[in-house]
This record gives sequence, C-alpha cells and structure tokens, in this order.
Amino acid sequence: MSKKGFDGDAIVYCEGAYNTTNGKTAHGLVRYTERYNVVAVVDATFAGRDAGQVIDGIGNGIPIVASIKEAMSNAGANAYHPSHMVIGLAPDGGRLPKIARQAVMEAIALGLNIDCGLHDFLSDDPEIVSLAMNNKVSLRDIRKTPGRADLHFFTGEIETVESLKIAVLGTDSAVGKRTTAWVLVQAIRNAGYKAELIGTGQTAWLQGARYSMIMDSTINDFVSGEIEYAMVKAWKEIRPDVMVIEGQGSLLNPAYPGGFEILAAGRPDIIILQHAPARKDYDGFPGYPIHPLRKQIDAIEMISDKPVVAITVNHEDMTREETAIACERISRVHGLPAMDVLYQGEEELLWVVMPYIKQG
Amino acid sequence: MSKKGFDGDAIVYCEGAYNTTNGKTAHGLVRYTERYNVVAVVDATFAGRDAGQVIDGIGNGIPIVASIKEAMSNAGANAYHPSHMVIGLAPDGGRLPKIARQAVMEAIALGLNIDCGLHDFLSDDPEIVSLAMNNKVSLRDIRKTPGRADLHFFTGEIETVESLKIAVLGTDSAVGKRTTAWVLVQAIRNAGYKAELIGTGQTAWLQGARYSMIMDSTINDFVSGEIEYAMVKAWKEIRPDVMVIEGQGSLLNPAYPGGFEILAAGRPDIIILQHAPARKDYDGFPGYPIHPLRKQIDAIEMISDKPVVAITVNHEDMTREETAIACERISRVHGLPAMDVLYQGEEELLWVVMPYIKQG
Repeated sequence: MSKKGFDGDAIVYCEGAYNTTNGKTAHGLVRYTERYNVVAVVDATFAGRDAGQVIDGIGNGIPIVASIKEAMSNAGANAYHPSHMVIGLAPDGGRLPKIARQAVMEAIALGLNIDCGLHDFLSDDPEIVSLAMNNKVSLRDIRKTPGRADLHFFTGEIETVESLKIAVLGTDSAVGKRTTAWVLVQAIRNAGYKAELIGTGQTAWLQGARYSMIMDSTINDFVSGEIEYAMVKAWKEIRPDVMVIEGQGSLLNPAYPGGFEILAAGRPDIIILQHAPARKDYDGFPGYPIHPLRKQIDAIEMISDKPVVAITVNHEDMTREETAIACERISRVHGLPAMDVLYQGEEELLWVVMPYIKQG
Repeated sequence: MSKKGFDGDAIVYCEGAYNTTNGKTAHGLVRYTERYNVVAVVDATFAGRDAGQVIDGIGNGIPIVASIKEAMSNAGANAYHPSHMVIGLAPDGGRLPKIARQAVMEAIALGLNIDCGLHDFLSDDPEIVSLAMNNKVSLRDIRKTPGRADLHFFTGEIETVESLKIAVLGTDSAVGKRTTAWVLVQAIRNAGYKAELIGTGQTAWLQGARYSMIMDSTINDFVSGEIEYAMVKAWKEIRPDVMVIEGQGSLLNPAYPGGFEILAAGRPDIIILQHAPARKDYDGFPGYPIHPLRKQIDAIEMISDKPVVAITVNHEDMTREETAIACERISRVHGLPAMDVLYQGEEELLWVVMPYIKQG
C-alpha cells in the first residue's frame, strides 16, 4: 500500500465469461495494471490454464482457478496475500449477475475488499453493505456518479499545463485506444521522459491511472472540468513531459459521440487515431458502417484545429501480413505513419511523437 | 391543473437582478411559458413597472412588485391564485443567494410550491425540506440529476419517429437558440401543423416543454438515450408533424462543446443555426474569438451529414438597419436564408421549413 496508486494483491472474478467480450475488464487487468498485483483469475471453465495464454496466446504466469476459495488457498504457497477482489465481468447493460453477487458475498466473508465497475452498485445492496461492514472491508463502486460537491467546473487552468498533450482518439468504441495509450506512455517512459496516462474510463482507473476521471458516469456539465482537473493536478504534482489522454467513443458514432470534451477541455497538441481497418460497422450498431478514415481525420482536425499525426492500427480479423498491408495502404493514401503497436512494438510510434516533446 | 404540462399561477422571484443577465431565467418566463400563468415578478428595484417593458420595451401586463407578500395581496383583486413561486435568478455558479433562501422560506410559509433550477438544491436543505413538509408544498429542483433507474440508454427507436426533425443549434451559448425554437414551433402550429419543442435545458422545462430532458444535469452515459426517449415519447403520444429540438452550447466551444448528442441521437433532418454577428468572443471566454460562421456551418454538416438550411440572427449590439445588413451579407456569402425571427416575425423562417414538412 506504500506506492501511490497501488492497492495490493487482487483476485479477478470472471466466472463463465473469461474468453468472451463480457470479460473485457478482466482482459484489461491481466494485460496491464499498476493498481493491483493480479494473482489469479476465477473462471471454472478455464481452471488450470494460464490467463495470458487463453486470451493472447502468450503466458503471463497468472493462473485461472475454479473458485475464490481455490485462489485464497493457493495464496500461502505462492507468497501472495490477496486484499481485493475485482469484478472482471462487463456484461451488456452492466448488471451484476446473480452468481457474481453470491461470489461477492463469499469474498467479503473471506475478508476481501471489493472493487466493481458495473452499473449495479454494491453500495446500494443493503445485504452486501451490512456484510462488508461486519467484515470491515471496503466496497468501491467505480462507476458511481460523484456528487456535485466532488466535481469541478472548467476554469481555463489547462492553459498553465506545459506538458506535451497527446490525445488517443478512435474511429469507433472498443477499438484499442486505451491499450495504445498505455503502450505509448511506457515507451515514452522507457525513452527517459516522464509520462502520465490521463484516464477517462473505469478500466484505466482499475489499471492504475493516477490522474483520471470516468467520463460516462460524470454529470454532463462537469465532463470538461473533470478532464481539466485531472490534467492540471498531474501537472502540479509531477510535471510530466508528456500526458497521454485516453479517448472515449468516436466523434462520428451514430448515437454516442465521444471525444469532443477531450479536444475542447484537454487541449491536446497532437492526436493519434486508433483504427480497425477490417471492422465494417460501428461497435454495437450493426448496419451503421464506420465512416471512412479520411472523413474521421478531417472531422477531428476541423473540430480541434490540431493535427492527427499517426494512425494506430488494430489488427482484429486480419493476419500479420494483412495488417502490414493495411498499414502501408493507410500511410500511402493519407500521408500519415500507420502502425500496429502490439505487433511492431512501440518504437515507430515513439519516433512520431518524440519531435513534439519539449526539451527542458 | 387540468391541462397537461400546465402547473398553475406563478410568481417569479428575481430580487435585485431582473435587468441583468443573472435574471435570464425570469426573462424566459415572462416572455413565454406554457407551464405557468406568470402573475408577478418580485424585484423591488423595478416595483411598479411592467415586466415586459423593462426588458423588451413592450408591455406584457405582468406587474413587477416589491415583495412576495405584495404579489399575494394583489392576488384577490386580480383574480389569480398563485400556487407556485419560481426562482428566476440564474447567478454565475448557480448558487442560491442568502436573500433568496429567506424568500423561499417566506413563500413556503405562504403555501406556495417552489420550483428552482439552481445548482444548490432546496431538497438538500433540511430546514427548507422540513418547512415544506409542514406546509404541504412541493419542492422541485429541476436541475437535480435523475438517478440511473429513471434514465434511458439509447435504443435506436429514434428511427421509428416519422416527424420532420429540426435542430436549432448555435454558434455560441446564450445566443437565442431556445427563443428561435419556440418561435418556430408557434409559427408551425399557426400554419396548421402539429409541432412540439423537444427541450434540452431547464428553462425550456420551466416554459412548459412537455417532452424534454435537461442535458447538463444528466449522467453523461444517458444523454443520447434521454434525447431519444423524449422524442420517441412525443411521437408515440401525439405524432407531431414537426419536432424542433432545442440545441445546447456550440460544437466548437473552447471548453463546453455541445450539440453532438443532439445530432447523433436526435437524428435531425435539417439544422437551423443561430448566430450573433456582432459578438466577438465566446460567451464566458473572453479572448477566445467565435469561430467563423463558415467553419461552424461546415463542422455541423460534416459531423451530421445533414444540411444547415437557415441562419437565424440574434440582433444583440446591432441596430435594426445593421441587423438587416448582416442578414443580407450572410445570405450572399453563404447562400443561405438569414433572418431575425424577433424583428421580422417568423414568416420567412416558416417558408424555409415548410417544404420539408411531410404531407400526410
């Protein structure tokens, strides 16, 4: 608990959903988190296998176990001491499944603090609240809308932030913006600069983004102010050379347009645009084709007056070779560097960004 | 109370601010409301004068009085029976001034229901709540964020709405979008069609918009769904020929971009853009020049793929002659009809819109 933003060893609960899109919160956690040391994933379907192997084909040493009890009983042997259980489920609609509610009760009884990012709030469930009090554990509903007294209006103080500000936007939701943002933050850090991720979603928070807000659960009037507040706080506390702002949604989404407040209040200097060339329709909106990349670049640059400097490519539904061809085609047609940060590493993207970093 | 959306005779409280921008909620109410019959404005500074005369130079028969008591004692003679007091103050920051809190207590003691659109909620003030309970009056905090259980996600049902959908957006906030929207609704009704205003702010609600949501106090995730829900409800209940959607903010605002969810979720067929040619900087952002009209039209059309069909002009800081010249210049440069709906009446705008109305 000594390191700021580190909360301890954690079990990720994902029963019945680990290999599905409903397990995406768990996937984010096993791939990368600075908030917890993930010691086990609970999903009986894959018990005995390696959590990284199942989703990425590369082992990461995190075991999948059949039950919370099994995770706890392994603890002694493996020299870890779980203090938290995190709900790794993200079902459509954000409701807490019955079986998961039972698991929460069981975990509380075992003395675990519970972190949950669903729309169903644990703190609204009297039985769970009472059990948590009796067991002296904490319940954190990450998505609960903060009260007005805890929120901030936009002040204009963003103008005092001297870091290079990079926004990672996307041509769709669930397209890999956050992953690219973390990869970029690590690459910049490895190059010897101070970089911070400005989180705007619950998963970034779970992954340990120290300066963040959760856009979709914020009262609309405060969205701009909360983005500014997170960035100004980061600037005052640690003066990063670079801030990488996690985007949300996409500008031209047929129902949930996103990213406007990031462009307006976050005032990025440059924009990286994440794109999945093989995806046809907007995520969750079959029959609504994703707007052409050219139009999306133009819309961002028109709204923000700032340049899109690179297209980062999500390789979903493409082979390595197809991905390479797609990147080359995007570069040729749009005159912009295009790369898959997961396949080719972060180096190429770092080269694009480096010239913009202000040299102290 | 028999007419849907009509709540009764109301006193508007605006002490010390009636002729300032902090009185803008009161101005909206004395100019137009279907929710109340406004019987008096309280502001001792202008006691004895006509409320319309003071702000618009044209009498409207609503007296300004020195106190709530005076408004109530006039009641018998004037054959009205106030059931509500509405807070007409809209100070920066949205706090309830001390003197206004005293007035609320006095009004409750006199048996008046209180409607308030400030950020300070009456229902969070134990003394006021207790007094209201004892006096059996209601407190409505219009800006209070509804709980998740009362909010709606976007479903796509907007596609079933067959009304002509017109969005009135603006090149800035506080530029007259709502006024133009009401003028247009009335004009369409006078032409023999069924028209409804889809309200998106607290003042439209106070003015009696029967199908509305309050954008700035809604949890961000539900903004699109609430816009859709209001429109689908209007369609199901009264099948309007036309829905006019009140815009919020402006697309290119330097901190609080607005209107994107209206374009995405409300799916307007055509857009009317409200503009104040003499205004230099964004409202509340001195030093941030308003983006050129051409760029604003282009941004709206690029984002929505729908046409801007008219520029409605706000004549602030212009004479009648200057306004006419500005309209003509806009028409010539941008190839769009441009008119001031307050000076020239609504007829010209109606002509623009009429051809789009689907003939049953």
